Amino acid sequence: MRPLILISNDDGYEAKGINSLIEMVRPLADIIVCAPEGARSGMACAFSATEPLTLTKRREERGETGSVEVWSCSGTPVDCVKMALHELCPRKPDLILGGINHGDNGSVNTHYSGTMGVVMEGCMKYIPSVAFSLCDHRADADFSPLAPYVRQITECVLCEGLPKGVCLNVNFPVIDKPQTYKGVRICRMAFGTWGNELRKCSHPRGYDYWWMVGSYTNDEPEADDTDNWALQHGYVAITPTRIDVTAYEAMDAISQLLTPNP
Amino acid sequence: MRPLILISNDDGYEAKGINSLIEMVRPLADIIVCAPEGARSGMACAFSATEPLTLTKRREERGETGSVEVWSCSGTPVDCVKMALHELCPRKPDLILGGINHGDNGSVNTHYSGTMGVVMEGCMKYIPSVAFSLCDHRADADFSPLAPYVRQITECVLCEGLPKGVCLNVNFPVIDKPQTYKGVRICRMAFGTWGNELRKCSHPRGYDYWWMVGSYTNDEPEADDTDNWALQHGYVAITPTRIDVTAYEAMDAISQLLTPNP
Repeated sequence: MRPLILISNDDGYEAKGINSLIEMVRPLADIIVCAPEGARSGMACAFSATEPLTLTKRREERGETGSVEVWSCSGTPVDCVKMALHELCPRKPDLILGGINHGDNGSVNTHYSGTMGVVMEGCMKYIPSVAFSLCDHRADADFSPLAPYVRQITECVLCEGLPKGVCLNVNFPVIDKPQTYKGVRICRMAFGTWGNELRKCSHPRGYDYWWMVGSYTNDEPEADDTDNWALQHGYVAITPTRIDVTAYEAMDAISQLLTPNP
Repeated sequence: MRPLILISNDDGYEAKGINSLIEMVRPLADIIVCAPEGARSGMACAFSATEPLTLTKRREERGETGSVEVWSCSGTPVDCVKMALHELCPRKPDLILGGINHGDNGSVNTHYSGTMGVVMEGCMKYIPSVAFSLCDHRADADFSPLAPYVRQITECVLCEGLPKGVCLNVNFPVIDKPQTYKGVRICRMAFGTWGNELRKCSHPRGYDYWWMVGSYTNDEPEADDTDNWALQHGYVAITPTRIDVTAYEAMDAISQLLTPNP
């Protein structure tokens, strides 16, 4: 039986990134896509607690080289994964892929990213899960330099799986052809900070409103073991990412800080 | 100068939980509240990438015993924190509190919780941050048994701070008076799974739609060091939680799995 891959993203089912990803991995497996109807950037692991969800079949291709089914869901990236697992997948997928995201999901962006929401959700369901992101927000970004890496990582994880509770956050810097990536680095998440995040505007009716913007600062630019460093130096950054967020190393200090009873 | 505490939640500024929290900690500090206009459960670390945000002052009390300012914001819990830090706080707060949430934020709920979004955001800004949640979804839940614990934890963290990159996820089980909590346990996050998450319904106009529901299973019920265990056994569960989600323990295995270049 051919492997089954579930794909979602946070840019919507029509985005170039997800359609590039489908083409890269369809030789490897049957594909089910369930992605948001439009852009859901910054949705993190959000799910729809109070809104009803709908599901729409967009296309289906079946052939001797395998099948691709594409669905859209009205909800968040995490909703899409839950919906696909519940309603669309004939069996548990062998792999869940998120992306390819239009934009950088390194450092603290991990926590805001809907693409990472997809793979955190997959990981919480004990399914090997990998997020791919290109540090280029443009709708017509060129994903072609990523293809050999995406295929190799996908093949490896399909074959070997991932440790329980661990997913991969894979980020690609922008390179100009005929330049190539310098290689792959297994990284830790950099500490970094978003600042100047709100831009105040005045509505024609006389009240204030704000847009979320912001600029990012790498708080440890000298450290050469981070995702930020790898991306700045032309490497593909792979950050093994865990769903168990317990700060084990802080447990003793916290125990001492908080006496047992008030 | 009195300390400054910023408070937000995901149940909205009118919820009983946040108003109980304000009363519990106002003797300790000046308080600024910036909370969503209504329920934003399951919003995780989502922020508003494409929607404009508005801000409304709801009340202000100034007296010899300190001040309380309450604002609502149209966005997500994370938006509320970003907005408050940018527009409302006269200086960097000494502490950010999330909650008190109406409902359990233990185990994998950590990843979906807007209350945890509040404190993850605070932690990403290097501000000591603590989330409080009561395992009771009811709008009129009784928060009074929590008061001595909330005050003691708040005082400790105000005084001592928290390690960089670590926030606290504090969950309280439901107890019936005159029962009291058995004490406090410093826990790890349990592995658990949500299942049966989608309930299909038929719209009067003839199409299908789905509500997100689900039932939770603790996947390691025997382990006595988890938040789920502590809550089931009548303890206050404190899980030190990190924003660095790198799976350090998996880096060697991932390095071996993924050969450097395709």
